[in-house]
Amino acid sequence: MKVGYLGPKGTFSYEICKNTYNENVEKIPYKTIKETIVALDNNEVEEAIVPVENSLQGCVTETLDTLIQNKNISIKKEAILKIKQNLMAKELYSLDSIKEVYSHPQALAQCRNYLQNNLKNANIIEVTSTAFAAREVVNKPYAACIGSIDCKDEYSLQLLKENIQDNQSNETRFWVLGKDLEENNNSKQLTIIFTTLNEPGALYKVLSIFDKHHLNLTKIESRPTKTKLGEYYFWIDIEIENKDYMPAIDELKNVVGFYRILGKY
Amino acid sequence: MKVGYLGPKGTFSYEICKNTYNENVEKIPYKTIKETIVALDNNEVEEAIVPVENSLQGCVTETLDTLIQNKNISIKKEAILKIKQNLMAKELYSLDSIKEVYSHPQALAQCRNYLQNNLKNANIIEVTSTAFAAREVVNKPYAACIGSIDCKDEYSLQLLKENIQDNQSNETRFWVLGKDLEENNNSKQLTIIFTTLNEPGALYKVLSIFDKHHLNLTKIESRPTKTKLGEYYFWIDIEIENKDYMPAIDELKNVVGFYRILGKY
Repeated sequence: MKVGYLGPKGTFSYEICKNTYNENVEKIPYKTIKETIVALDNNEVEEAIVPVENSLQGCVTETLDTLIQNKNISIKKEAILKIKQNLMAKELYSLDSIKEVYSHPQALAQCRNYLQNNLKNANIIEVTSTAFAAREVVNKPYAACIGSIDCKDEYSLQLLKENIQDNQSNETRFWVLGKDLEENNNSKQLTIIFTTLNEPGALYKVLSIFDKHHLNLTKIESRPTKTKLGEYYFWIDIEIENKDYMPAIDELKNVVGFYRILGKY
Repeated sequence: MKVGYLGPKGTFSYEICKNTYNENVEKIPYKTIKETIVALDNNEVEEAIVPVENSLQGCVTETLDTLIQNKNISIKKEAILKIKQNLMAKELYSLDSIKEVYSHPQALAQCRNYLQNNLKNANIIEVTSTAFAAREVVNKPYAACIGSIDCKDEYSLQLLKENIQDNQSNETRFWVLGKDLEENNNSKQLTIIFTTLNEPGALYKVLSIFDKHHLNLTKIESRPTKTKLGEYYFWIDIEIENKDYMPAIDELKNVVGFYRILGKY
């Protein structure tokens, strides 16, 4: 079996990948979230691991925007990882001497206050993953990266400062993606995307269906449809453990513009 | 009068600033959205202009997250700008020869497909504004920036390619921020942030109040509270033109953990 993840080795996605699959599973790194999901769509891998949301930064928009466009992909499982960000470099530089800081935009955002207070004059350089950042600084003097402590050994870096995220309640939710929507009777959660009808109270009408069927909404997120300012896709998570949610789905069809079940897991 | 904006000269925020205020108003550039809002909070400026959401990328999370933390600030007005992104450099380089592309993360995200198709091997470098990116490439060989066409003249750059955003329906919504919540009887829109109670159906209860009072919701966005994965602030926009919305606000108090009116405008 082959599994894709947001690589290279040393990313938080890789950590989840190691926790989820045994060593017989071939783990293939991709350069972006989009490429990871497209690889699954193209059958290069059978499953894929992507980050979904973080407790500090919110929704990983690239994941949702790519899933909306890849209709054959569904969520098989979720996994939550406690995130610790660390500042690393090829030598034990003083913070004052660092000229560049490399990392993934989400990791940079998670350390925004730390960077403003301690590395105000360094150039912030956005790259496609935390591990790619580590690889970048291996041979760069006075450059540091931010990422998982795994990168320290993986790329032979020095640890300048550990645990630099602005908030200690830093967790990331990941999805394990597959090709077919699983018919699992023990699912705890349902994830749906939909658009509303173009009329007053349209979103309320959708949510009232779930309320009527005693289904609790644990998450709602809007993403632009990219056609017009003010038009959105909605992503919702619903608790379905021991619930018959099919009647709600049947009613949903009448009050949405479009909907798709992204996963039962 | 003094007004702050996400600078330097040549940003889209500057364009809105020029459209909104006459030449007697002193326009002061700040380096980040957070610094712009904090300057208003500290009375360095009387008003401030910040981007809020974009039709392709969605919510500008830094704006909302900073507003949540600065309790004395409110929205006075909104303005919408049609966005055109352009690739510029100090000389008319061929795309193949470009080694680095500088811009603000939102602008980079808006041109994600263009970059992947045309500048796949260039390093993408995130800076704090589109105009700062322009300033960065003024003296850098084989480096390009992405931003407003204003930057071309402002920084004496060459236009390599105009209109490179992935989608032509590219609009950004801005807010004009001030210190006091205005009592304006002609307001069209109400923006509120709130947290829900920790119980099933909590969000539905909030929205049902607005439905009961025939108030239409045009926007809902969730942002993490940064305390725990799965806990959110909600930001909603409500149409209030010719409506008595105060009874709804009175009822709202009973079904939320916390709420604040960010603006009537």
